[in-house]
Formats: sequence, structure tokens, C-alpha cells
Amino acid sequence: MITLSLIGIGTGNPDHVTGQAIRALNAADLILIPRKGEAKSDLADLRRQILSQVLTAPVPVADYDVPQRADQDDYLGAVNDWHDAIAQTWAETIAAHRPDAANVALMVWGDPSLYDSTLRIAARLPGLGVRVIPGITSLQALTAAHAIPLNTLAAPVTITTGRQLRDHGWPEGATTLAVMLDKGGAFTSIAAEDTEIWWGAYVGMPEETLIHGPLAEVSGHILATRARLRKEHGWIMDIYLLRRGGDV
Amino acid sequence: MITLSLIGIGTGNPDHVTGQAIRALNAADLILIPRKGEAKSDLADLRRQILSQVLTAPVPVADYDVPQRADQDDYLGAVNDWHDAIAQTWAETIAAHRPDAANVALMVWGDPSLYDSTLRIAARLPGLGVRVIPGITSLQALTAAHAIPLNTLAAPVTITTGRQLRDHGWPEGATTLAVMLDKGGAFTSIAAEDTEIWWGAYVGMPEETLIHGPLAEVSGHILATRARLRKEHGWIMDIYLLRRGGDV
Ligand SMILES: C[S@@+](CC[C@H](N)C(=O)[O-])C[C@H]1O[C@@H](n2cnc3c(N)ncnc32)[C@H](O)[C@@H]1O
Ligand SMILES: C[S@@+](CC[C@H](N)C(=O)[O-])C[C@H]1O[C@@H](n2cnc3c(N)ncnc32)[C@H](O)[C@@H]1O
Repeated sequence: MITLSLIGIGTGNPDHVTGQAIRALNAADLILIPRKGEAKSDLADLRRQILSQVLTAPVPVADYDVPQRADQDDYLGAVNDWHDAIAQTWAETIAAHRPDAANVALMVWGDPSLYDSTLRIAARLPGLGVRVIPGITSLQALTAAHAIPLNTLAAPVTITTGRQLRDHGWPEGATTLAVMLDKGGAFTSIAAEDTEIWWGAYVGMPEETLIHGPLAEVSGHILATRARLRKEHGWIMDIYLLRRGGDV
Repeated sequence: MITLSLIGIGTGNPDHVTGQAIRALNAADLILIPRKGEAKSDLADLRRQILSQVLTAPVPVADYDVPQRADQDDYLGAVNDWHDAIAQTWAETIAAHRPDAANVALMVWGDPSLYDSTLRIAARLPGLGVRVIPGITSLQALTAAHAIPLNTLAAPVTITTGRQLRDHGWPEGATTLAVMLDKGGAFTSIAAEDTEIWWGAYVGMPEETLIHGPLAEVSGHILATRARLRKEHGWIMDIYLLRRGGDV
């Protein structure tokens, strides 16, 4: 029986790796690393950089090509097929490299619980035991970089996606909204009045860029900065917190 | 000018401490540790245990007595007064132990952004620079222990408190709710039908206790377990995830 450890590695700062993650990487018989193509190769490099810093003895590493997601209309259907294909690739990669492995490790961006598919993919491989090792999320990297609390005093927080914000607007009754997975500027789809934004791109990484202010004032600046950075680096990851009508 | 580092240390598992936290603790001129009275002394001990594991050279440590919060009707007013008193205590403790300190460190339970007051307290001390170092939250420790994702596919998540759940019920449109700071059993105030719960106490600690199932079936078991554990240990911290009508 293989145990697959899903190891949260944080979102770009190798210094965010925990002692538990380091231990689990060192205990692995095989470490799987996704190859995602040119643009984001800095991210694959980050995984290797972390390994070179934390492994106390060599551990076999297997790269695998991440299957392409079909661009079909049925979003959930496409995602399901894609997850099946990735599970298949994992199984094949393990069989090809270490069919006898007891402990296989996967380095997961941020924390494995947050907008990440590895748990759902792993569930497709029967007979695989899954262990999760938490990691610092991009949301925590954002609030740390801005030195702000996530919630206002004793109040709730909603974490959502750019698509949800565009499609459903500001959730009824929410004062704090954290937005991830935004293809760009979903905050322009809501009324900017009385709303504050804390935005960050490449948070925790050397390219980290932060903007904070009333949404009405900084919205255009964020859009322009995002477009410029994306062009410069060939890729971008950004995240932001929106607050409305709440005191901090 | 003093820089105060608010260092997230995770929620009970010393192995959740990050490399960045270790570095910041070692760079401190003074580390402040709260004394909270008998019942939770295991928690103060955990801070000392972490220090004994990660400090490569001795760093001065100052204990301080956490002022009592007044039990007045005006909740927010009481909290404000309490935060003022804690800020005052920090300033006095620093002045008494290392008036010349440049880097003072505070070890914050979990992550400093999540239902924690240290950022708000620090804001009361003018002339203090604040730096935040993220740590693993109890919510991540919970999802890792149960090996579950926080969100369902591309869907939002709301993080809230036991009091909010009691006072306002299930938030309109939510499928996943994470509940913290529950004085006990706020989940009994909502309809249990079609709701699944993943509950954890002392998550990440040796006493970790997990229960998972349909809320209607396990609600009583959780209440009884919580009461027993609380009596046994003299204190309890628990957290849970509720899901309704969403596929995983
Ligand atoms: C597929 S999700 C994975 C999230 C990850 N599991 C975590 O814990 O942060 C990717 C989204 O996370 C956010 N993200 C991840 N890393 C980031 C970073 N370093 N800076 C800004 N946003 C980041 C972006 O919103 C991005 O669209
Ligand atoms: C004042 S809040 C602090 C939260 C902390 N900053 C974090 O990041 O998790 C305290 C609440 O966190 C949760 N909590 C903290 N540590 C926990 C643990 N080890 N097990 C279960 N719940 C925990 C409980 O809901 C508790 O009421």
C-alpha cells in the first residue's frame, strides 16, 4: 500500500516551508514534480530549490507532464476528465520510477485544502492512503505582507473566486471577502463605493507587488500594474482582500 | 524604533513552525510570552518547547501577565479596553527587560491574521513597526487531519464564529462553513438535515480528537466528547467544518 503525502510548501517563499514538510520530504521514496511548460517554469524551479535546501540525503524525483485540460463548455465535466487524466499520470509515473515505493510525496502549492485539486485527484486512486501536511496559503502570505487581520473583530470572512464575484456579486451580509483565482479584475464588477482593497501579486516571492487603498481610487492602478507584470514575467498570480463598511 | 514581529507558530504541533518563524525568533532581542493561568499552562509550555527546539543561541524571554477582560455587557467596549491594557503591558514589559531592544518577538497562536488580536493591540503602540510572519492556522490543521479540501470545487467558503452561527444561522447561499471560537455546540442551533460535520479538538496536538459524519448522527456524540475532554484537560479548543448540499 502506497501512502501519498500531499505536502503544502507555501506560495513562493521557501522560508515558509514547515518542519513537518521537511521531514515528510526526507521520508519519501519518490517525489513527484509537475512540469507545466515554459511560462511557469520558475514555479517548478521553486520546488527543486526547496528540495535542494531541505533534503539531507538524495531522494528520487520524477517529473511528470501535467495533462491539458479540455476547453469545453461543460466546466465541471472538463475538470472531472482532467482530474482522471492526472490520476492516471501519477499512477504511471510511480509505476515507471518506483513501483515498490511506500511513501510518495507531492509538493502542493500553498495549502492542499485551498482551491487545489490534489485531494480530489488522489481520491481517484483506490488503495492509496493519503496524508495531508498543511502549508502557508497565499491568503496568509497576503495578510502577512500587508500586516492586516483577515477578519474584522469577531466577524465572518468569505473566501471566494473571481468567477463567483463576477457571477454573483458581493455576498449578502459579508464585510470581508478574499478573492483568489481571478483571471483579472473581477473587482471591477462590483460597486467600488465604501470598499477597501488589499491586493498582492507574486506574494512571498522576490517579485512581490502590493497595492492598498480605497477600491475607487486604486482599481485602475491595479489593473494597469497587473497587465504590466503579467507581460514582464509571462505569468501572474494575484489575490486580494476586499472590505466593506466594517471597522478593522 | 522597535520592530515587533508577530510570529505565527501554528496551533500546537511544534513541527508546524516555518523556517521564517525560526529565523525571526533567533533574530529577536527579546521574546514576549503570555502567562495565562493554570488551565492553559500547557500552551505557554508549548511556546517554551518550541523555543528550546529552534533557538541556536539564548534569546532573553520575558513572561507577562495577560490582563483580565472585564465581563461587561458592552462586548466590543470590553474588548477595546482589554486591548488597551495588553498594549500597556507589552510596553512596560519591554521597558523593564530590554528598553534598548530593536527586535521584539511575539509568538502568536496559529496565524496572526485569523481571529487574533495582536495586530490590533500592536496598532495601539505608536512608533512601533509591525512585521507579520504567517503560521499554520487551526483550520488548516483541521482539514489536514481529516484529509479534506476546505472548499468544494470552485465554490466559496465562509469562516465564522460560534456566536455568529447562533445569532444569524446558516449564511444565505453558503455551502461550506468553518466555525471557530465556539463556546460549545453552536451547531445545535441550525437544522442538522443534509449537513455534514468534520470536528476536531486539540488539532495537531497529542490530545487531537476527530469526529466526522452527518450532523444529525454525530451531533450528540460531539457534545458528549467535548464535555468529557474539557473536564479531563481543564480546557478545550475545537473547530469544525460544516457542509451542506455541495458535492466534494
Ligand atoms: C489553484 S489556487 C491554489 C491556492 C493554494 N493552494 C494556496 O494555498 O494559496 C491558485 C490561486 O492562488 C492564489 N495564489 C497562489 N500563490 C500566490 C502568490 N504567490 N501570490 C498571489 N496569489 C497567489 C492566486 O489567487 C491563484 O489564482
Ligand atoms: C482566538 S482564535 C485563534 C485562532 C488562531 N489564530 C489560528 O490561526 O488558528 C482561537 C480559536 O481557534 C481554534 N483553535 C485554535 N487552536 C486549535 C486547536 N489546536 N484545535 C482546535 N481548534 C483550535 C478554536 O476554534 C479556538 O476557539
